[in-house]
Amino acid sequence: MSGGDEFDLLAEVYRKNVLLPSFVRVPPGDDMAALRFPAGDLLVAVDQVIEGRHVAVDAPAAMIGRKAVARNVSDVAAMAARPFATVVAVTLPRRYGRARALDLFEGLRATADAFGCPLVGGDTSIHADERAPLVCSVTILATPAWPGARIVTRRGGQLGDLVCVTGRLGASLAADGTGRHLTFEPRVPEGIELLERLGDRLHAMIDVSDGLGRDAAHLVEQDPSLAIELDAARFPCAAGADWRRALADGEDYELLFLSGGPVPPSAAGTPITVIGRVIEADGGPAVRVRAEGHLHDGTDAGWEHRGS
Amino acid sequence: MSGGDEFDLLAEVYRKNVLLPSFVRVPPGDDMAALRFPAGDLLVAVDQVIEGRHVAVDAPAAMIGRKAVARNVSDVAAMAARPFATVVAVTLPRRYGRARALDLFEGLRATADAFGCPLVGGDTSIHADERAPLVCSVTILATPAWPGARIVTRRGGQLGDLVCVTGRLGASLAADGTGRHLTFEPRVPEGIELLERLGDRLHAMIDVSDGLGRDAAHLVEQDPSLAIELDAARFPCAAGADWRRALADGEDYELLFLSGGPVPPSAAGTPITVIGRVIEADGGPAVRVRAEGHLHDGTDAGWEHRGS
Repeated sequence: MSGGDEFDLLAEVYRKNVLLPSFVRVPPGDDMAALRFPAGDLLVAVDQVIEGRHVAVDAPAAMIGRKAVARNVSDVAAMAARPFATVVAVTLPRRYGRARALDLFEGLRATADAFGCPLVGGDTSIHADERAPLVCSVTILATPAWPGARIVTRRGGQLGDLVCVTGRLGASLAADGTGRHLTFEPRVPEGIELLERLGDRLHAMIDVSDGLGRDAAHLVEQDPSLAIELDAARFPCAAGADWRRALADGEDYELLFLSGGPVPPSAAGTPITVIGRVIEADGGPAVRVRAEGHLHDGTDAGWEHRGS
Repeated sequence: MSGGDEFDLLAEVYRKNVLLPSFVRVPPGDDMAALRFPAGDLLVAVDQVIEGRHVAVDAPAAMIGRKAVARNVSDVAAMAARPFATVVAVTLPRRYGRARALDLFEGLRATADAFGCPLVGGDTSIHADERAPLVCSVTILATPAWPGARIVTRRGGQLGDLVCVTGRLGASLAADGTGRHLTFEPRVPEGIELLERLGDRLHAMIDVSDGLGRDAAHLVEQDPSLAIELDAARFPCAAGADWRRALADGEDYELLFLSGGPVPPSAAGTPITVIGRVIEADGGPAVRVRAEGHLHDGTDAGWEHRGS
């Protein structure tokens, strides 16, 4: 992390008397951070937020920082795992300004802290080009929910599984202030409670970021003998969203999972809704949606309607 | 890693029958990768390569991938540690093209593999803006050199320590084809052999990325009672570089370290040169360079000359 840093924003943020947890043995400011890691599996993922792509150019810097971390924490929730630590690489626009950059880093730091995965390293650069946008990429490390706990992947769905989702879907990107894409709560406690309560019946899980239809397809793509049928009438639609938006909008950051048995009505206080079932593949779309008396292709943004 | 990926280049690269090591329990393609981690300290760092900033816009994509990984491996070498795994976030220019993007990812993958830190996760996005450049940020995980081995940080220098450097310095960015910034070998075996041979006498270490003068300053910045005096006549200058370039050019990715006793003439086949000593701070510059009968400020790009 030594090379070419124009300035060390992370060191600046940590100079404000913020304490790091004791498992951080070498804090930010060296070539690498060193962490005391509990024995067992280590999970790792990276995700990025780009101005003009995942956030509006005029979004507040601290909220961009929040989203960059929270997206990653949502990936941890999807494995029924527990956030452990984060590092961030930021490329700043040329005229971003130091105060705004510090807001961004403080948003990253405070959010990481709040979700139990302290920011332990960072690299900051500035674009050479005048017009290039902010790029903020967060890497998250995680541990199993408890020592020896199973990690829940996208694979493992079985014929007859219930397709279930936490919370509400759709209209997350609404620009009128009701959209949740900057303020969502990653479903970490929900994922862990589902693993505790369902145990081996929690067959597969993913977070809904690309959209319910596309993410449901990921849950059966490893097994060509399986498909998913969803019932649009059961979709837990957010205010302002109909079933089509619940299916396609994305950025909900809810947990979508396959259960081999009955599910509780809620987990960690968040409602759970059964919205479909794993069926046998028949050459049709991997995800089909029963709505308004027809079967629709749930994975195709082109809405290729099909008779039922 | 599920959200907003335009396409999954990493999955594509791994589809070419490339085997991942057995410690990778959940391979790329899920929300997170899962790795069987040996008990003990976990090291983590992130570093980025930006087109127009760290590499020329016309640099071959595979070499950009190589540099992005190798810079991080150099951070591992600087801790006398051992590379373990990598993840990468890439933001592609709009007109980059799929073949070139695959070259980039294959460069990342092959380099990570060669240095013993397989690429286990990635996220790819595409800029919204037509003119925005490639941003490639690599996060590297590492372990101590052997179970229970000490991690060597930038702190720990003591009065009288020898200041030593591996290899040759300067002219790394030469555009005539002799520059090493795209082809350098990170000094991982050298770092580990130094730790084995010097043991507790290996007081502090860093890799030379910003430039010898600036990086030497990092080795005493934690202790205001210490400074460093370098002897320019001893600098192991690369072909085409004088002492000024060896001091200031940067991107050498050699190891700069402080030793509390004599050092071997080489480590892992790479020459080691003693170039200075840790002295008492006297209110002067943190790093001063004795050259041509004068003392120069080694940390100031402005070359504030001083009488000796």
